[in-house]
Amino acid sequence: MAVYTEVDDDELAAFVADYDIGEITACKGIAEGVENSNFLLQTDRDSFILTIYEKRVRPADLPFFLGLMDHLAARAVPCPTPLHGRDGAALRTLAGKPAAIVTFLQGVWPKRPTAQHCGSLGAALARMHLAGADFAATRANDLSVDGWRRLVVSTEPRADTVMPGLAREIASEFRDLERNWPNGLPSGVIHADLFPDNVFFLGETLSGLIDFYFACNDALAYDLAVCLNAWCFEGNVEFNITKARRLLRGYREVREIGADEMAALPWLARGAALRFLLTRLFDWLNQVDGALVKPKDPLEYLARLRFHQHVRGAGAYGLD
Amino acid sequence: MAVYTEVDDDELAAFVADYDIGEITACKGIAEGVENSNFLLQTDRDSFILTIYEKRVRPADLPFFLGLMDHLAARAVPCPTPLHGRDGAALRTLAGKPAAIVTFLQGVWPKRPTAQHCGSLGAALARMHLAGADFAATRANDLSVDGWRRLVVSTEPRADTVMPGLAREIASEFRDLERNWPNGLPSGVIHADLFPDNVFFLGETLSGLIDFYFACNDALAYDLAVCLNAWCFEGNVEFNITKARRLLRGYREVREIGADEMAALPWLARGAALRFLLTRLFDWLNQVDGALVKPKDPLEYLARLRFHQHVRGAGAYGLD
Repeated sequence: MAVYTEVDDDELAAFVADYDIGEITACKGIAEGVENSNFLLQTDRDSFILTIYEKRVRPADLPFFLGLMDHLAARAVPCPTPLHGRDGAALRTLAGKPAAIVTFLQGVWPKRPTAQHCGSLGAALARMHLAGADFAATRANDLSVDGWRRLVVSTEPRADTVMPGLAREIASEFRDLERNWPNGLPSGVIHADLFPDNVFFLGETLSGLIDFYFACNDALAYDLAVCLNAWCFEGNVEFNITKARRLLRGYREVREIGADEMAALPWLARGAALRFLLTRLFDWLNQVDGALVKPKDPLEYLARLRFHQHVRGAGAYGLD
Repeated sequence: MAVYTEVDDDELAAFVADYDIGEITACKGIAEGVENSNFLLQTDRDSFILTIYEKRVRPADLPFFLGLMDHLAARAVPCPTPLHGRDGAALRTLAGKPAAIVTFLQGVWPKRPTAQHCGSLGAALARMHLAGADFAATRANDLSVDGWRRLVVSTEPRADTVMPGLAREIASEFRDLERNWPNGLPSGVIHADLFPDNVFFLGETLSGLIDFYFACNDALAYDLAVCLNAWCFEGNVEFNITKARRLLRGYREVREIGADEMAALPWLARGAALRFLLTRLFDWLNQVDGALVKPKDPLEYLARLRFHQHVRGAGAYGLD
């Protein structure tokens, strides 16, 4: 939950005047999202989301993210559509920082995802993968093996302050993953961060996928691995195979999961668990005084990682 | 900026079903307000504000606050109107805590208040005072002299860690105020916390007064003193007499300021400055690990206090 940048009224009015969206009637900071400042902007015509990009997003990546949303929205993926200003540009400047306005999506994210939610998610993810196939721009996944290596090194000295033995367990897992990381899987544009708070539902119907600011090019099945971790464990970190089965079946109804992808899934799931373990651990060890965001518990992802270490095949995820 | 309570979807849907306001289409935590959790709730009919009352608000005071908003809204004061559930109750329970839904007010609060804003504020404050005259319930101001005494005592041991000599300066000011605090002024319901972020404007027109959770019965002119402190100092803590004059003139166009109130204004302004100095100092000294709100600088109010100490009459505020 975060609003890092305060915007002056006159500045905001001038910014909005560059679009053809009417007069501002309200603008409220939203207490969601940890990377950027988000505002619910209302005009006399409609509701929008105004995002000011903060330092954790590289400005050079923004054309990729905004272009991807444009591309997906044009292909009926329910995602925010960037608005273009009168001069045609979607990426603009507000309060000295990069900023954009996107359409407002109705729906609420599921605080307690059900198996039915997981099924809808799987189908939407597959549709997103298919819709992204002809997106021309590319962006490397900077939170894959090379990125993990940097995080392993930088968290190592103090990892054991979080849990004795953690540094060693992470180092060992990283060596395993480095040796066994799947190559040559079908790839394309992935979301890479499709947690429940990035997926909206209206009743039981999936109404939106948001927050494409980790999107990149990588193995499509890695997105499934991220979702297995984020959607299919209960509060006590027990794996819910029913939810996993529904997620994977929902996906397969739209895009087939190849034998190579099935075989790779346990390694991809370990990698995804390590990725969130490492970034959470880094944030935990580097808490900023006066930070507006409470860091998330890294050990939830250690528990997931240990689960996947004992998985011998995709059958454990409900795939047959 | 704060959302302290996460609400489960089913629980939220059941809560909203107790009102006649349609189906939920979105619900976003708002990064504003430091006392309670606020959500912008949208249904297929309209926008609303959902507030969950957190521990800093005494549940016993809630009927006063909600009743006051009902009362003022019925008298055309532009303030949130509490919605009543199908059973007639405005104060309900959500996630185990007291909660209410109020109407959504259009407008944005002025990040850089102008003299014109101050004039509109003065008039709106006076209208609120007149409209509150026949409100039957009462609530003592627990942040007046007795409340300050408790804060003086509890901040004294560590006040000098913020600024050397602060404890002594506060103690001396408190003794002066205790001896000279004005009595017998015209009183009634006051807002007591009418900072710029609690006042909305649509263009140049004042469109809303919000956040009545410090409202109480006290000298009406004390509200003017709070506003003089909150609206009429520049970023460098220099007093802007033009803004003060507009504020007081705007007020007088609606309700006369008596000679006794004029004479008392410098003491009231010192008291208001001490009140916010003390509460900010207390919050500064008692920061909670993982808090979602950055404490505000108490010394901004020390500077205001020192200004008022040198004021010899209401003329210094532009009153003639």
